[in-house]
Amino acid sequence: MQDHLQRATWIWYPDDYEIWLHQKVSVLRQFRGYICPPSWRLDAAYTSVKFRKTFDLTEPELLTLSVQGEFVLLMDGSMTPIPYKKTPITSVHIPAGRHELTVNVYNDREIPAMYASGATCGTDGTWEVTALNGKWVPVASWTFHHIEQPPAAFPFSYETRQPAAVTNIDGGVIVDFGRETFGTVSFLEASGQGGIHLYYGESLEEAMAGEGAETFDTLAVNSAEPLDRTTSVTRAFRYIQIKTDPGISYAQIEHRYEYLPMERRGEFRCSDPRLNEIWEMSAHTLHINMREFLYDGMKRDRWVWSGDANLGFLINNYSFFEQDVAKRTMIALRGKEPVEIHINTIMDYTLYWFLSVHDYYLYTGDLAFVRSCYPKLVSLMEFCLNRRNEAGMLEGYPEDWVFIDWAPMERRGELAAEQLLFCRSLEAAALFAGEVGDSEGEARYGKLTGRLRETIYRLFWDDEQGGLIHGRYEGELNRQLLKYPNIFATRFHYLDEGQREAVREKVLKNDAVQKINTPFMRFYELDALCLLGEHDYVFQEVREYWGGMLDLGATTFWEEYDPAIPAERQYDMYGDKFRKSLCHAWGAAPIYLIGKYMLGVKPTEPGYSRYQVEPKLCGLEWIEGKVPTPDGEIAVYMDAWRIRVTANDSGIGVLKFKCAGRPIVNAGELTAVGGDEYELLLTSPSYEYEIELGRGDVHA
Amino acid sequence: MQDHLQRATWIWYPDDYEIWLHQKVSVLRQFRGYICPPSWRLDAAYTSVKFRKTFDLTEPELLTLSVQGEFVLLMDGSMTPIPYKKTPITSVHIPAGRHELTVNVYNDREIPAMYASGATCGTDGTWEVTALNGKWVPVASWTFHHIEQPPAAFPFSYETRQPAAVTNIDGGVIVDFGRETFGTVSFLEASGQGGIHLYYGESLEEAMAGEGAETFDTLAVNSAEPLDRTTSVTRAFRYIQIKTDPGISYAQIEHRYEYLPMERRGEFRCSDPRLNEIWEMSAHTLHINMREFLYDGMKRDRWVWSGDANLGFLINNYSFFEQDVAKRTMIALRGKEPVEIHINTIMDYTLYWFLSVHDYYLYTGDLAFVRSCYPKLVSLMEFCLNRRNEAGMLEGYPEDWVFIDWAPMERRGELAAEQLLFCRSLEAAALFAGEVGDSEGEARYGKLTGRLRETIYRLFWDDEQGGLIHGRYEGELNRQLLKYPNIFATRFHYLDEGQREAVREKVLKNDAVQKINTPFMRFYELDALCLLGEHDYVFQEVREYWGGMLDLGATTFWEEYDPAIPAERQYDMYGDKFRKSLCHAWGAAPIYLIGKYMLGVKPTEPGYSRYQVEPKLCGLEWIEGKVPTPDGEIAVYMDAWRIRVTANDSGIGVLKFKCAGRPIVNAGELTAVGGDEYELLLTSPSYEYEIELGRGDVHA
Repeated sequence: MQDHLQRATWIWYPDDYEIWLHQKVSVLRQFRGYICPPSWRLDAAYTSVKFRKTFDLTEPELLTLSVQGEFVLLMDGSMTPIPYKKTPITSVHIPAGRHELTVNVYNDREIPAMYASGATCGTDGTWEVTALNGKWVPVASWTFHHIEQPPAAFPFSYETRQPAAVTNIDGGVIVDFGRETFGTVSFLEASGQGGIHLYYGESLEEAMAGEGAETFDTLAVNSAEPLDRTTSVTRAFRYIQIKTDPGISYAQIEHRYEYLPMERRGEFRCSDPRLNEIWEMSAHTLHINMREFLYDGMKRDRWVWSGDANLGFLINNYSFFEQDVAKRTMIALRGKEPVEIHINTIMDYTLYWFLSVHDYYLYTGDLAFVRSCYPKLVSLMEFCLNRRNEAGMLEGYPEDWVFIDWAPMERRGELAAEQLLFCRSLEAAALFAGEVGDSEGEARYGKLTGRLRETIYRLFWDDEQGGLIHGRYEGELNRQLLKYPNIFATRFHYLDEGQREAVREKVLKNDAVQKINTPFMRFYELDALCLLGEHDYVFQEVREYWGGMLDLGATTFWEEYDPAIPAERQYDMYGDKFRKSLCHAWGAAPIYLIGKYMLGVKPTEPGYSRYQVEPKLCGLEWIEGKVPTPDGEIAVYMDAWRIRVTANDSGIGVLKFKCAGRPIVNAGELTAVGGDEYELLLTSPSYEYEIELGRGDVHA
Repeated sequence: MQDHLQRATWIWYPDDYEIWLHQKVSVLRQFRGYICPPSWRLDAAYTSVKFRKTFDLTEPELLTLSVQGEFVLLMDGSMTPIPYKKTPITSVHIPAGRHELTVNVYNDREIPAMYASGATCGTDGTWEVTALNGKWVPVASWTFHHIEQPPAAFPFSYETRQPAAVTNIDGGVIVDFGRETFGTVSFLEASGQGGIHLYYGESLEEAMAGEGAETFDTLAVNSAEPLDRTTSVTRAFRYIQIKTDPGISYAQIEHRYEYLPMERRGEFRCSDPRLNEIWEMSAHTLHINMREFLYDGMKRDRWVWSGDANLGFLINNYSFFEQDVAKRTMIALRGKEPVEIHINTIMDYTLYWFLSVHDYYLYTGDLAFVRSCYPKLVSLMEFCLNRRNEAGMLEGYPEDWVFIDWAPMERRGELAAEQLLFCRSLEAAALFAGEVGDSEGEARYGKLTGRLRETIYRLFWDDEQGGLIHGRYEGELNRQLLKYPNIFATRFHYLDEGQREAVREKVLKNDAVQKINTPFMRFYELDALCLLGEHDYVFQEVREYWGGMLDLGATTFWEEYDPAIPAERQYDMYGDKFRKSLCHAWGAAPIYLIGKYMLGVKPTEPGYSRYQVEPKLCGLEWIEGKVPTPDGEIAVYMDAWRIRVTANDSGIGVLKFKCAGRPIVNAGELTAVGGDEYELLLTSPSYEYEIELGRGDVHA
């Protein structure tokens, strides 16, 4: 079809697309033939909404309409519907003059949505909508710009893939698609009467386990004539064991890979092929998990978790920079009013949500999104504030899951780690309040931040042990030294120089302190270690830990990996065989660590209007890559002799590097900041700065 | 089927059945082929819930299951589903010992609900449910006691009705069903290709208007063989104009009357046949409108309005005493959290909701219901309290509809009528708080009631005019004398004897004060006039106003009736021909007035544990009737010589009457209270008390 003069688009009630979609996808998880709904409240879109728009037309105009739902058109406040033409296309005449058109839409399956286009006017961001709750708000829309493409179907891309290998086994075949993939399976020219049984496996062992696999389907065939048949629900797998009932035959198996089309705007190559492979596989892992939302893992849970998403967003910022997924995920996680329990029922996961919005704003500079979610951000914060104890701190309520990490620890009372997350959340809320012009909120949240930070340090900082202790329960301090609060304090830049040193030596690098075993918290730990300058240690760890999975034949990175576990139990988790997710978003952590600490690129002001580049070779001969920003990529090359940085298309950067002698630069303002440290100001958009470091004696 | 040892029943999340059903029925209204969704937020049931029950079994037990939705069974906190048998009947083995069974159910069309029964245990009120929001609450259930009868279909009764008359007209027929009815229409042995067009009319004129009627349907026929065809949506009508496309034929028209089975527990007969007819037709009018909920009118709006329901409940209390409809209606009106706008968007309608719960409790004594809705009652009250102005009074916000009545009046600022409704609501909240043991709430609401009542009288009582003035706007008193605040103050017993006299003479019986023209507010006015002793006036009015509709051929009572309007415009309303509802619940008001003020029966303590009977002949030769109570009916007979009262099956009544001489009673403690007034204590359950009044010289 041709676009109309003005670009019309499908419109709906804000946040309802994400909330509706989230409910729909959250119940697709299956465990051995049974549904697995999430363990938190699933919110629903409004079913009855009213759109409005005032037209001021010099000529009467014919509006072409398509509505997702039943609808009625009203004009200028009258209670009597105005008739519309139903065939061949739905349309209504808008008379000349100033008229307010309202459209009531009801839909209890999909979101109520509409599309209208005329010669001069159509549905766009200037329309308003109400859920009949006393408030009119601007409509939301996305990329549904065609009248024939309503928002009921998510705009995925598809590729048909052939098996990499098909192996006969007793009573069936094993199909191997060569690497982890996601989608449906088709049997071409299937005939006979009965079922085709599919047992999916992220590992060969899982597929071979038949009904011991996490997911399996039966596809009914009932035709003497050969017909193509396709499974109805998407699954994550690399292998499928296929068994057919007697008399069933088919010509060929195909897989329809379903994915979100995304560009890999981030890039990385270096002199170590293993690290390159880790980066590539990380990108594939993340891509599989970025779809309608940023999921934890596509086999399991295929749910949206706020803590997992917090990591995933950071990784995305150094690879796809696909921010629509991020926004959908944050909206879905936040859900609807009233807030009755923490996000995902986990206290820390509510707090990670604030951190995610903060990271989102820092990396994108998208104030419009902050503005749109600010009221819900405030009510979520009020929920938290209402749950403070007399000391102004958060303790778990009986219904709260106080998580922090899968590790033995005291979870009762005031945990230092939770207060740090809370403090950072308050700090973010104060920032947002300021940005959206809520000066009262800014002052209040700011004051609460300061007071909580003071409480945390007064109670929990232990000079002797050189770190923040675990917490307090029923008035008694728990002086256990665990890494969590110290990781957070480091990440949030809440430590002074002396405290940083103490935390590095006495906590994070202290073998006597309980080790962190989950990749989830390991992400934050490695992040903190980089912030403390432990790059070499971190990237050695990346090579070993992620490399270990490669050695075991992984084609995507796992939810968890412990080299000490025997191979036959590597896929077990939560007490069940094959329950471990072998394609888990947080497994893609190396992308973030490499982008932020090896290529060394990070925004210092929202949206990369100011940014920093501080590349480090970390023992490699050369590194090269790109980091996406809202406005172009920042390209970095470094070897012992030179650094090349291409600035993004706007923004002002600072390149920080060391050089024993005086470096030679092709442009820009160079400042020696002391010792062998230099800063080069990157002010020319898209310009390639080149820095000659001399004779390779760079300390990096 | 046979019931199991214990009575199992379908269970679901509390209030969700009502909220789901309300959404479903609220969008059935049609206007000339277009949908008419209500102008308020429609709430939805939770789609994902989890039921739980701990069993303590000496023997293993087989539980037979039926679930409305997809589901998974889990036991004892494990994340691994327990398998269940799917055929021939769904069942699961519960092992002996103490085990907690949880059942996650997901359903996005109907409410998630389940039924389970075994030898010793099944789904009943001891199960709990959560919407995954951190709270476990006891499940709700109703009369769905059979495994094959899930709550998806409302348990209506049906009767097949034949037309009273079929008249040929140009190109079709007019079918008359003799009186207003409701349901679907069947065409037996229909054949041919095309449509049967039905134009419904509550009046003949409406049916004759074709597409000018409020509702019409087309039934598609596409069969050479004669097949029975039935319309898909229920409609309200007495007449139908039927036109068929060429070649369509059918053998017979039938109507399937759909109704809620209810017993007419209230009765009334008297020496005036016209009043008897008015009572009968009122009962029919109310019955048509009492279904899933108490509707305003079944043609229009077929919506649930809080103010309308407040009247309907009172009428129901003197006729069907069907309290399940009342409960469903109150739950549906209240909806879900958060409260964002007034009920039905109308400020007064929020306040009527509190009054309805109060009336419900007074007439039924059902504390369990009060307890179950108390948290939502509190949050609705908090919503109101948060909207008070500095003077502690309610003024309309821009999004509020300040209704009071369809009449010209100032609606801005502090209206005395609204404050009176608010004050009464606070008083009810204080009562409920006390009853459910919330002593803090009781004290708080009690104090607020007193303070507001004091404010109302200080500002708005005008001694000179002898009544409450209209209100205050921007600090300026509006001294207009309107009936509304004075009606409310009378009804709420907020007037002292002198004020009552003043209000009667100077306001309610003052022809210079703006007349009330709507049956809605007229109901409250007549109620107030009865409370002021104006029985004769009120029942003369009942004869004339309701009798006037009878004279115009009504078979049910109307939304509005003005004798002054010419016949050809009697069915117009809101600027549209035939928009008036001719079967409107509030049209049944005479039942209430007769029961409460002629038979004279009313509860004085919750649930008729204490009650009063004060019959009045109001100029008739004899009156006779029954008034339903939670525990049996109170029967009353009176003529000039005697009164007979049969006490209900529990409770203690006081019969109040006048007698010139000393009355003779067959039982009970008689007290002369002064003048010719007597009180007889009715303490014997179900006993018929007889009072001889002497020679017919009773003043009644």
